Amino acid sequence: MGEFELIKYIQTRLARPLPESVVLGIGDDAAILATPSNQHVVVTSDTLNAGVHFPRDTSAENIGYKSLAVSLSDLASMGAKPWWFNLNLSLIDLDFDWMEGLLDGLNDAMDGNDIVIIGGDTTGGPLSLSITAAGLCGPGKALRRDGAKPGEDVWVSGSIGDAACALQHMDTASVDLMARLNRPTARLELGQKLAHDGLASSCADISDGLLADAGNIAARSGVAIQIIAADIPIADEVKRLDPNNALKYAATGGDDYELVFTAGAAHRNALKNLSAELNLPLTRIGTVLQGQGVHLLDADGAEVSVKSPGYDHFSST
Amino acid sequence: MGEFELIKYIQTRLARPLPESVVLGIGDDAAILATPSNQHVVVTSDTLNAGVHFPRDTSAENIGYKSLAVSLSDLASMGAKPWWFNLNLSLIDLDFDWMEGLLDGLNDAMDGNDIVIIGGDTTGGPLSLSITAAGLCGPGKALRRDGAKPGEDVWVSGSIGDAACALQHMDTASVDLMARLNRPTARLELGQKLAHDGLASSCADISDGLLADAGNIAARSGVAIQIIAADIPIADEVKRLDPNNALKYAATGGDDYELVFTAGAAHRNALKNLSAELNLPLTRIGTVLQGQGVHLLDADGAEVSVKSPGYDHFSST
Repeated sequence: MGEFELIKYIQTRLARPLPESVVLGIGDDAAILATPSNQHVVVTSDTLNAGVHFPRDTSAENIGYKSLAVSLSDLASMGAKPWWFNLNLSLIDLDFDWMEGLLDGLNDAMDGNDIVIIGGDTTGGPLSLSITAAGLCGPGKALRRDGAKPGEDVWVSGSIGDAACALQHMDTASVDLMARLNRPTARLELGQKLAHDGLASSCADISDGLLADAGNIAARSGVAIQIIAADIPIADEVKRLDPNNALKYAATGGDDYELVFTAGAAHRNALKNLSAELNLPLTRIGTVLQGQGVHLLDADGAEVSVKSPGYDHFSST
Repeated sequence: MGEFELIKYIQTRLARPLPESVVLGIGDDAAILATPSNQHVVVTSDTLNAGVHFPRDTSAENIGYKSLAVSLSDLASMGAKPWWFNLNLSLIDLDFDWMEGLLDGLNDAMDGNDIVIIGGDTTGGPLSLSITAAGLCGPGKALRRDGAKPGEDVWVSGSIGDAACALQHMDTASVDLMARLNRPTARLELGQKLAHDGLASSCADISDGLLADAGNIAARSGVAIQIIAADIPIADEVKRLDPNNALKYAATGGDDYELVFTAGAAHRNALKNLSAELNLPLTRIGTVLQGQGVHLLDADGAEVSVKSPGYDHFSST
């Protein structure tokens, strides 16, 4: 199989009916898109490198799934509806079985999310996937990081720290916990509801770790964020598997792809209802304050110190 | 310098005034864009890997320049006006001087092309740059590969084979010839004029080689393309440096980033005038015929055989 056959094969395996908004898909120097009227376009981009973003022995299925899921999660955190993505794939060599797995995983991530592939490229090189994805959102509706205001509540979806715990306990973690690492669910429905109904004043997805991502909201909004450690929703299995590190996983482990968002107290009931409607826990974990930075507090109100927040690719520590 | 400082630094060094159409640029989970009314969006994506797309000892400036120039060339071949790009950058380590060079090169490629950076990411890994770029084009105006019709002329801009010759003769090539390899000019003005004035029926940029890229037009349009070898514009320096391989460079060498396009005979005068206006040679090199494939003919009308057309990253030959 050569490069042209590979592109043809990827195109065939990932094929979906193209919406009218995709005027020209794969097969030219570029794709052509007609933005639906009165919609803004939300664009995000992520690279996943073997040995950096996933262990080298990760299954092709999980690599394929996760490479798209992380971009879908960025769209979710903006409250956007998925539209298209492109895939830039670097491969050391062409292994047909491996490609089958990768495309199975990508298909799993696409399923139900109404997204189509419009292009990309394939090339030789160390295993790496770079995806740019776009979504649509009503003008002024997107959830940004810069809208948090003092006095508001801080919320998270789902449970936090699962992925980091699973990564450390691959041999003993349950299938469900491993799926939290390898098959994260982008919270698209939640993000879109929050954006459409104007329930959240700011939002980010938890990819680098709760403290790091809440810290981005704090920095962009010019506020402080206080988080009550005991209120962070941690899965029972995580507490059981590694009680001493459960809080560290929750506070600094990334890769959960839950949403952290801020909302006025007036929306507490609406958020409770939304949680029930989506069958997804939404938990109030803290408060927006004047000031700066993220502050994790214990039961006595004293600041808890956990290791460096989030993952820095170039940090020397 | 950590990852966050690096992103801040890239953002500062590549900063341009944001047009109104960029609602939110770098700094959130995604960018937000407002597509100008009655415009289609053209999207292209390319990855450049060290040791594959450029020699490992290529200067940072040239890597930076070329990584964006190849995407601009794809926009040119569609007839689109550049709008935004994002940059996914994988680095083994952080070398400040090297980053300075990379950003200088990117700035050079941005200058005069009215394009802004809206996002991307930086991560550890083997040196690789992946860029997605978008442009704007009037609905129905984009130059596609699938519009060539029998009886039309085949044209190319500039001279062909320069980059391939420069790559083989780095020690003896002139500064100007080396610039054709390292600092290619995306033919944006040409592409936009061809699209706007409806002069071309199909178009591609010459990135994989003239025969390969003309072959893509032939395949997508369901036609044959005949090229007269003697009519291909080859630079005097290429003929002088390597007379035995000049035709091979022109026919199969990629990386020239000139445009190959088809146009009805009625447009010959308009194209002559456009060539003068842009101060860019436009040369008629062949004819669109019924049939399939690309056929390179010598002075006697016999088919010339040159080595495999274009570069296949996974070909075993």
